[in-house]
Amino acid sequence: MSPKSGTPKKNLMLFSGRAHPELAEEVAKHLNVTITPQSAYDFANGEIFVRFEESVRGCDAFVIQSHCAPINQWLMEQLIMVDALKRASAKRITVIVPFYPYARQDKKHKGREPISARLVADLFKTAGADRIMTVDLHTAQIQGFFDGPVDHLFGQNLLARYVKENYHDVNITVVSPDAGRTKLAEKWADDLGGTPIAFIHKTRDPLRPNEVVANRVVGEVKGRLCVVIDDMVDTGGTISKAVKQLLDEGAQDVVLAATHGVLSNEAPARLAECGAKEVIFTNTLPIPDDKRFGHMTVLSIAPLLAQAIQQVFEDGSVTSLFDGDA
Amino acid sequence: MSPKSGTPKKNLMLFSGRAHPELAEEVAKHLNVTITPQSAYDFANGEIFVRFEESVRGCDAFVIQSHCAPINQWLMEQLIMVDALKRASAKRITVIVPFYPYARQDKKHKGREPISARLVADLFKTAGADRIMTVDLHTAQIQGFFDGPVDHLFGQNLLARYVKENYHDVNITVVSPDAGRTKLAEKWADDLGGTPIAFIHKTRDPLRPNEVVANRVVGEVKGRLCVVIDDMVDTGGTISKAVKQLLDEGAQDVVLAATHGVLSNEAPARLAECGAKEVIFTNTLPIPDDKRFGHMTVLSIAPLLAQAIQQVFEDGSVTSLFDGDA
Amino acid sequence: MSPKSGTPKKNLMLFSGRAHPELAEEVAKHLNVTITPQSAYDFANGEIFVRFEESVRGCDAFVIQSHCAPINQWLMEQLIMVDALKRASAKRITVIVPFYPYARQDKKHKGREPISARLVADLFKTAGADRIMTVDLHTAQIQGFFDGPVDHLFGQNLLARYVKENYHDVNITVVSPDAGRTKLAEKWADDLGGTPIAFIHKTRDPLRPNEVVANRVVGEVKGRLCVVIDDMVDTGGTISKAVKQLLDEGAQDVVLAATHGVLSNEAPARLAECGAKEVIFTNTLPIPDDKRFGHMTVLSIAPLLAQAIQQVFEDGSVTSLFDGDA
Amino acid sequence: MSPKSGTPKKNLMLFSGRAHPELAEEVAKHLNVTITPQSAYDFANGEIFVRFEESVRGCDAFVIQSHCAPINQWLMEQLIMVDALKRASAKRITVIVPFYPYARQDKKHKGREPISARLVADLFKTAGADRIMTVDLHTAQIQGFFDGPVDHLFGQNLLARYVKENYHDVNITVVSPDAGRTKLAEKWADDLGGTPIAFIHKTRDPLRPNEVVANRVVGEVKGRLCVVIDDMVDTGGTISKAVKQLLDEGAQDVVLAATHGVLSNEAPARLAECGAKEVIFTNTLPIPDDKRFGHMTVLSIAPLLAQAIQQVFEDGSVTSLFDGDA
Amino acid sequence: MSPKSGTPKKNLMLFSGRAHPELAEEVAKHLNVTITPQSAYDFANGEIFVRFEESVRGCDAFVIQSHCAPINQWLMEQLIMVDALKRASAKRITVIVPFYPYARQDKKHKGREPISARLVADLFKTAGADRIMTVDLHTAQIQGFFDGPVDHLFGQNLLARYVKENYHDVNITVVSPDAGRTKLAEKWADDLGGTPIAFIHKTRDPLRPNEVVANRVVGEVKGRLCVVIDDMVDTGGTISKAVKQLLDEGAQDVVLAATHGVLSNEAPARLAECGAKEVIFTNTLPIPDDKRFGHMTVLSIAPLLAQAIQQVFEDGSVTSLFDGDA
Amino acid sequence: MSPKSGTPKKNLMLFSGRAHPELAEEVAKHLNVTITPQSAYDFANGEIFVRFEESVRGCDAFVIQSHCAPINQWLMEQLIMVDALKRASAKRITVIVPFYPYARQDKKHKGREPISARLVADLFKTAGADRIMTVDLHTAQIQGFFDGPVDHLFGQNLLARYVKENYHDVNITVVSPDAGRTKLAEKWADDLGGTPIAFIHKTRDPLRPNEVVANRVVGEVKGRLCVVIDDMVDTGGTISKAVKQLLDEGAQDVVLAATHGVLSNEAPARLAECGAKEVIFTNTLPIPDDKRFGHMTVLSIAPLLAQAIQQVFEDGSVTSLFDGDA
Repeated sequence: MSPKSGTPKKNLMLFSGRAHPELAEEVAKHLNVTITPQSAYDFANGEIFVRFEESVRGCDAFVIQSHCAPINQWLMEQLIMVDALKRASAKRITVIVPFYPYARQDKKHKGREPISARLVADLFKTAGADRIMTVDLHTAQIQGFFDGPVDHLFGQNLLARYVKENYHDVNITVVSPDAGRTKLAEKWADDLGGTPIAFIHKTRDPLRPNEVVANRVVGEVKGRLCVVIDDMVDTGGTISKAVKQLLDEGAQDVVLAATHGVLSNEAPARLAECGAKEVIFTNTLPIPDDKRFGHMTVLSIAPLLAQAIQQVFEDGSVTSLFDGDA
Repeated sequence: MSPKSGTPKKNLMLFSGRAHPELAEEVAKHLNVTITPQSAYDFANGEIFVRFEESVRGCDAFVIQSHCAPINQWLMEQLIMVDALKRASAKRITVIVPFYPYARQDKKHKGREPISARLVADLFKTAGADRIMTVDLHTAQIQGFFDGPVDHLFGQNLLARYVKENYHDVNITVVSPDAGRTKLAEKWADDLGGTPIAFIHKTRDPLRPNEVVANRVVGEVKGRLCVVIDDMVDTGGTISKAVKQLLDEGAQDVVLAATHGVLSNEAPARLAECGAKEVIFTNTLPIPDDKRFGHMTVLSIAPLLAQAIQQVFEDGSVTSLFDGDA
Repeated sequence: MSPKSGTPKKNLMLFSGRAHPELAEEVAKHLNVTITPQSAYDFANGEIFVRFEESVRGCDAFVIQSHCAPINQWLMEQLIMVDALKRASAKRITVIVPFYPYARQDKKHKGREPISARLVADLFKTAGADRIMTVDLHTAQIQGFFDGPVDHLFGQNLLARYVKENYHDVNITVVSPDAGRTKLAEKWADDLGGTPIAFIHKTRDPLRPNEVVANRVVGEVKGRLCVVIDDMVDTGGTISKAVKQLLDEGAQDVVLAATHGVLSNEAPARLAECGAKEVIFTNTLPIPDDKRFGHMTVLSIAPLLAQAIQQVFEDGSVTSLFDGDA
Repeated sequence: MSPKSGTPKKNLMLFSGRAHPELAEEVAKHLNVTITPQSAYDFANGEIFVRFEESVRGCDAFVIQSHCAPINQWLMEQLIMVDALKRASAKRITVIVPFYPYARQDKKHKGREPISARLVADLFKTAGADRIMTVDLHTAQIQGFFDGPVDHLFGQNLLARYVKENYHDVNITVVSPDAGRTKLAEKWADDLGGTPIAFIHKTRDPLRPNEVVANRVVGEVKGRLCVVIDDMVDTGGTISKAVKQLLDEGAQDVVLAATHGVLSNEAPARLAECGAKEVIFTNTLPIPDDKRFGHMTVLSIAPLLAQAIQQVFEDGSVTSLFDGDA
Repeated sequence: MSPKSGTPKKNLMLFSGRAHPELAEEVAKHLNVTITPQSAYDFANGEIFVRFEESVRGCDAFVIQSHCAPINQWLMEQLIMVDALKRASAKRITVIVPFYPYARQDKKHKGREPISARLVADLFKTAGADRIMTVDLHTAQIQGFFDGPVDHLFGQNLLARYVKENYHDVNITVVSPDAGRTKLAEKWADDLGGTPIAFIHKTRDPLRPNEVVANRVVGEVKGRLCVVIDDMVDTGGTISKAVKQLLDEGAQDVVLAATHGVLSNEAPARLAECGAKEVIFTNTLPIPDDKRFGHMTVLSIAPLLAQAIQQVFEDGSVTSLFDGDA
Repeated sequence: MSPKSGTPKKNLMLFSGRAHPELAEEVAKHLNVTITPQSAYDFANGEIFVRFEESVRGCDAFVIQSHCAPINQWLMEQLIMVDALKRASAKRITVIVPFYPYARQDKKHKGREPISARLVADLFKTAGADRIMTVDLHTAQIQGFFDGPVDHLFGQNLLARYVKENYHDVNITVVSPDAGRTKLAEKWADDLGGTPIAFIHKTRDPLRPNEVVANRVVGEVKGRLCVVIDDMVDTGGTISKAVKQLLDEGAQDVVLAATHGVLSNEAPARLAECGAKEVIFTNTLPIPDDKRFGHMTVLSIAPLLAQAIQQVFEDGSVTSLFDGDA
């Protein structure tokens, strides 16, 4: 008798948190798999319980969760799912966070602040995640917060392609709603074939530095279609003001395009009424019907996620899907 | 010229999450310190932001948070506070969790479950906590989930002393509401001077193991004051049934005593109407007025916490406060 | 020319410490493998040396050791074996500890004590273990001491099945020898079809809390077959007193059943003479002939271990073997 | 007899690598300490040897090194110094990197690239560094690469103050040399009292994305003093082209201001001849005489570093020195 | 009211394992402290229990243990003591191992062996040790196995001084008992004022490499006092043969000097009868009366340990005590 | 629909730093693979950039680099390559360091020195290396500095075989150039069939311990062929003096053999003129033509490396290649 031997198998298993099951379902359909059935519920005091209904031993696990409100709830749920997978002998665990939670707190703006985006990366690592897959990080540096592979998918390409197809016959200026996104605007301008770019400059009173005195549009916008781009829209305050100012300064039309539609509070109303001709998002976060309006377009991120999962599972090479240089 | 030298100082600084500021205030008063002022608020999508208003360099930080609903929110807030303290050069960080979150998920009850209580310990470690202070853990083994000092305070003593003072002239039986707390009942019986103990035995149908067929009281309760003890009361279902059954089996009176009043959903109503003569909690978790009723007594845990913090800060020795053998 | 590629193989290799080679042999036979030959001996001063005689590169290693006396010797041997496997490029290392060493020190009973059961988990991790397989932990929370998968096999099922088959026609009461095992007794009662349960309540003098004043049987035992259950029997003091007391209080017969027969010092004599009708163990620990007596039954744990190893190797799913809810 | 006790002392000790001893000396003078004497030399094959000539037990160590070419040499030297300090029982080790090495590789620009800036943070941690002090990071997110306190000093303030004092009576436009520094330009504009800002937009041919087709100045520069700002100047190619273009488009004068004068290869010549009226750096990196020219101004960073070290040593609070919101 | 502040204290506390209490007592006397009282005993199955009788919060703990047989027992005891100290909030933990356990397994002599000396360093780290103090490591490289400060005391100086004082008027040759200690012999030769050195060359049959064919003395020994030196003597086989051979080849007298008297099995008899004029050890390991004989001299290592502890506690500088270049 | 499954593949990919591409090419040829194409260059300030031109997802990566001067440059390059591989999802990363950098600093020779060889092991670990492959470590203990598998190849065998074949008919004495390599000489003597050995004893003045007073040859060399062996030759000072002294003391001829030809500064001249009949190295380090001379022989290490890589990739067993007992 000698030692037993054999050939290892690999199994792709898809898991979904409760935040945005529609997206997970759509991804599953593209992959031609089913989401692993699980029990997941809250105890009366809000503690989350998760149990998988099938063996996950040795699987290549992909755990998808969208981080909409209540965001801490969904983050903890995903951590708990990862812990359960680790303890149940999953072979490799990839967390999929289409919208990276706490991405805006990626540095200390002032002293004695947390760097919550790094904390989130560490929490995933601690729970047992081997890798992260995400879309359009607020800043690309966040990749470096995780000590392991990060598949950074480029959702802006989806938006740019849509704009290109639907607004090919007008004079476009790509506009960054503030000074910090100018680089992203430049990338869009390249993708759209070399359009001009502009940005909104916020002037502060040096004596009261937290107070914006005036917004100035820097760059050429008059008579042009302004495509205002951003990675996310939360309350929509800044961006709807930007639209109005661009129209005031003679823009012919304004289109908004952002990957992540956080759309908190009055955001839907603001966007609906700000004067933009079209507002474009992806579904990295759920956008329920009551947040939608006539001229809002939601592109699905599911095909991109599915394709990336497939490639990760097969150790394939599709750099074109990943990263970018924004 | 030679190297600069001096004598280090140590500063106790107290920090409070937003879940239960009254308890933190009470602790601060006992310690004769003020809670360090901070900005803490939620972004529109639920992301938490924290910034301390004073320098925390080199301080001995104590970060108190109560983990009531929404429990994941308060847990993340405490983790973020710890991250901010670590990055702002606090010397030592003690997290104070009067009620340890996810303590009930301290083992896998079945396969493919998380061990969330261990995960919580690891999350605190990852964020930067050096030590944990807590009260009446669901099981004492949870101390071992943290790789560092855990100050495990004994709140049951507070309850036992109260019962002893207020019910000294009656024949008491200490009752565990299920088989798992019998050991705790034994400890109470010793503290109360050697009373009998009893417990409720849940009989299951072997063919349908998740279904309780009948509850049997094991032990002597007739004509006695039954003190039903537990570490926490969540929805109050089990414990209010226990009260009724004890009264049915001839108990003269029933008193409930538990450290943590989670009191979810209908718990207040159930407890108010279950027939218990008195219901006793501590304020490790906030018990707002609308959850209180006439014969509920809430003992303050603040003096115990304050004393323990003082001892930890001064490296004093008060084992009597800590640990126990429940 | 392009990169070399191929299909990985996986090899199950079984390794055995020197504490209980018979058990390892029995497991090997069930798996139809041979134990990997090794040199293992002690230097004159007690230092252990281990060297494997065959290549272990890339293997799926299972390292079995029983932790009987001298327990520290056998623990160090297993750690050293794991270190050697790690450095020799084993792919995955599972330590098999049928009896988890130091399981009783799973919490601080008082201040300034170690939590040795957590220390043991950390030592295994440090040496290089990826996973632990064990049987009937003293408390299930110990699973949470290890940061990785723990396969917790349920040996009590073996005992319960044996009792069921051999004592099916008598009125059974399941008895916990102290308050701490009442929950386990309840599980047995369910497995045996809904029998009553009882436990021995130790009364302490509040003035001298370490002194037991009296033992009281709580629950119905008169005229019944008492099955006294526990996870382990060490010196046998408590459990043999329990047998006597049960007989004194009118039990018809008493059967003892415990997974781990530590059987230190006078334990065999005590058990042989305590009046029990039958004493049942498994062979998680070696029980040499001179510790056996006529009415002792030793059930083999080897088939269970072998089945679990097979499943782990094949990433199969047999939750029925694993975990429990004691 | 009882345990020995006493009051701990704390000693500030300053250590200097060999890259830029003048800066360390200047810092030492401001702190009124001497640099700890050491033997540091290269073996014939380039291996670095370091030995401290005085005891460092229990000290609060600050290890300053500038990361000019040969940058890997100086990085390894600093890591080796930290290792020696750790093994010699220094109590706390702060590495001071006025110019953070590999800061530009803070993200993957494309697939299969390293994130060297994160690697550097991890190398410091591994060697034994407890904290990092640095000046004007390429991106503030790099703070999050280190799992511990980072004192991020704001050297741009020094530059802005100088410009304010020396160019107070002219009409200034702050210019970012590319789209990525627009946010920094905005901060300067605020500091200078609300000036306009502009940036140079690089247009790429979508078919050949690595090729810049044209640079366009976006914003108002005609007849104004353009202050071109950046965090560092390496080969000076981009920035000297920017100067020329600004002058071509009618700027009255151009002043360059950057914290880190890397000044590789032809940079000094380019800057000297590009037409700028003044070129301003700090001495975070050594700027030897042969790289200087008439209208170059070098401001000393030493007072800022000394002040920060003093505050860190004394656990003082000077948030004004630290961080920023660039 | 403001935060509490004060001046920290530091307390030296000494702890002793049960292996060699006499040495610990002697060290304590030199330090003028008492050993912290503790309960330490073995459970019936060999599990060790430790509990400290006094508070250790915030102390500077020194945990001394000698690693004689049963060596695994004493190693586990020390690990458990460290775990208890860590959990009880000791501030800094130094393990003192006068004889480093498993030092001989400091490399893989062949494939598939452990590196147990590294494992031991990792186990101490895992348990919670911050630093190690030891005497005359088998190889100095072992210092590098620990990721932190190692105080490596030089016991050979004690032996050399003794030999110098007692054999100053004879012609000495320092002899290494095998090829591996020649460097150490060279150091001794320097310390004794430039004596010649020799070593015993073991010749192997190339066809049977594990078999020593002949020993040859390389170097001049005729008519001289041979001082045979080593770090440890275990079974005494090699060294007693060396003595005989040296006498055979005309040595006038032979003196043996080694730091660690392991003295297993027949070692005392062998040494007593091998013909050596004097045999010199230190008491890093206990040498009970029944292992001693007339011409054995045991020098106490306690003053050196006490001095080193004092210096570590006070952050003093005594490099002369530490390290060496053997 | 069910989870996707398949059979994993494994791919060997070879990567080469820029220090010694010829060796990597030679290894690739033996393995019948191509080196993975990459972009690797230095920025103007010396920062290294690396990007792989092909997907490395899931590959078994072998990263070869020789550590000649500028050694810190090549070390950082290898670390950066490992970081890039880790982030690009390589499955396993083996760093191949034919000459282990900083191997000589494997212990503290005096206080307050680094242990750079341990630091190097930790840096590799931190960057993401899973295993190390190396040749003839300065001391075998360095294997223990890495927490994982180290494949320690035995290049001395290559040298010994060459000497055996080319000098089989003369009387050989194997000579260690100092006391520290006597053990290695003994191994050679065994390999050559039981020759005598000798070493050079450096006598120091005890009053000026850093000063060598005289070198004495210990052992028989007159009229014999002296084979002076070492692991490396750096500046060649010691070894060329040894040759002269051996010839002075009557050696018939001298042959030098060392694995690593560091050959710094005047080493080639010294060796060429020292009187040795032949000087033998391997090509673990590049030896360019201008360092070669007539009687220098360079043996290729590439076949050994290729064979070892093949075995590691295939999980084969070739202990004969690995380790040794020098």
